[in-house]
Amino acid sequence: MIGGSVGAALRANGLADHVHGVEPAAASRELALARGLVDTVSEDPSSLRDCDLVILAAPVLRNAALLERVSDWLGMGAVFTDVGSTKAGFCASARRLLSAYELKRFVPAHPIAGSDASGPAAATVDLFAGRTTVLCPLAETDGRVAARVEALWTAMGSRVVQMPADEHDAVFAAVSHLPHLLAFAAMNQLIDHPSGRTALGFAGPGFRDFSRIAGGEPQLWTEALLANRAEVLAWLSGFEAQLEQARSLIAQGDDRALREWIAAASDARRAAHTQLN
Amino acid sequence: MIGGSVGAALRANGLADHVHGVEPAAASRELALARGLVDTVSEDPSSLRDCDLVILAAPVLRNAALLERVSDWLGMGAVFTDVGSTKAGFCASARRLLSAYELKRFVPAHPIAGSDASGPAAATVDLFAGRTTVLCPLAETDGRVAARVEALWTAMGSRVVQMPADEHDAVFAAVSHLPHLLAFAAMNQLIDHPSGRTALGFAGPGFRDFSRIAGGEPQLWTEALLANRAEVLAWLSGFEAQLEQARSLIAQGDDRALREWIAAASDARRAAHTQLN
Repeated sequence: MIGGSVGAALRANGLADHVHGVEPAAASRELALARGLVDTVSEDPSSLRDCDLVILAAPVLRNAALLERVSDWLGMGAVFTDVGSTKAGFCASARRLLSAYELKRFVPAHPIAGSDASGPAAATVDLFAGRTTVLCPLAETDGRVAARVEALWTAMGSRVVQMPADEHDAVFAAVSHLPHLLAFAAMNQLIDHPSGRTALGFAGPGFRDFSRIAGGEPQLWTEALLANRAEVLAWLSGFEAQLEQARSLIAQGDDRALREWIAAASDARRAAHTQLN
Repeated sequence: MIGGSVGAALRANGLADHVHGVEPAAASRELALARGLVDTVSEDPSSLRDCDLVILAAPVLRNAALLERVSDWLGMGAVFTDVGSTKAGFCASARRLLSAYELKRFVPAHPIAGSDASGPAAATVDLFAGRTTVLCPLAETDGRVAARVEALWTAMGSRVVQMPADEHDAVFAAVSHLPHLLAFAAMNQLIDHPSGRTALGFAGPGFRDFSRIAGGEPQLWTEALLANRAEVLAWLSGFEAQLEQARSLIAQGDDRALREWIAAASDARRAAHTQLN
């Protein structure tokens, strides 16, 4: 979905003379071509040799593994970047696996876009329009190379923000990885509980929206949670402390303190409404 | 919102000769009249004397308190019902506070509709169209009275299901009360954490949907969580067990088991997609 959407956006905005995709699954290659997400497609990474810009769009741990082979595929002068939702581990892999020359031309990136859908069928030309893309250039990254990647995301309609990789990972543990973990846990509780499937039949629009992210692609989210495990577990602990506070207020029947706790959350969510929509 | 939407739906579908509202807040009374949610409105509950059907639409604990006064307000032959999201405690209050005659004419109800909005400004004529309404008639409830209330909700476009009050409360602890509690906890964690407000600025569409229910009305949700506390705390414990399982898989880096845990949730959410949308 993300890689295909980048291809579609590059083509639609005239940002590349030629968009070439590499994809191991034959069905996805065919669909990417049929939907016009790419000009050409191959299963062979060595076909990337003549590309000026290479965007790694696999799940995050797979992207990190791909860095081992990247020198075999990239032509001299190629810029490379990614679209993964965790950054510190990926940057550490890059420092371990890439040459000094390659590190200069490496710009870690994370477009904040997507949905519970995946694959080329879900790719859209305007996925990044009006959204934010975070760049986490290394100290080693050449400033002009980072500026080229920034200009590319801007041209696809995205607002670009730069942030150190560790700060990025703390932010996305909080607003993406932990919420996904919570939604997975809520769905698993329902299907594990003897009355859970009956209950699901009575879910309303609140649960529909709350649980939507539980439909996320398993491999993608497994890798994101593991790649960002320290931050995810720290935010999970903080969340459990909030649950214990709520449990105590409910068990004691402390309606005033419970209302204040809920009102703090409700006020914050309502204040964030415009920003979140 | 719920009471006003009932008024609007009754009027739009020609289900009442006259819709009269009782509301303590002057601004809400004016808005309900201006928006055509009611024909007349008053702050005085004794103005309900000539109504054939009375619908209690305050938060659940307030509704229970209103039962103490209900015999002062209702005319002979009036049917009364409610729209609250917890039922067992409300039914227990009814058994304690109502006469045998009143119990026959009492039909506890819960339309599964709403949003994070509240008040007459948020009322809509089609809030219940295509949604489910649960009726929890008591053993004491007259079957013809329950049939009248069922016909009313059907006429407002709702599918009606009957269920015992305790079963209802377990279901809605699972798919409504606990998810609200989780969303409140997630928002409170963000605003209590030194980096949380910065992180909120990077939230994407996933967090937007996940957290929407955190904007719920504090009094309403305080009362719902307290009125259903035994079920809510039981479901909270089950949820925390899921979190501990996830924590263990992430801490151990058990990618296979973590992927299976996520895939179970993702498959269930995708399978429920049509039903939830």
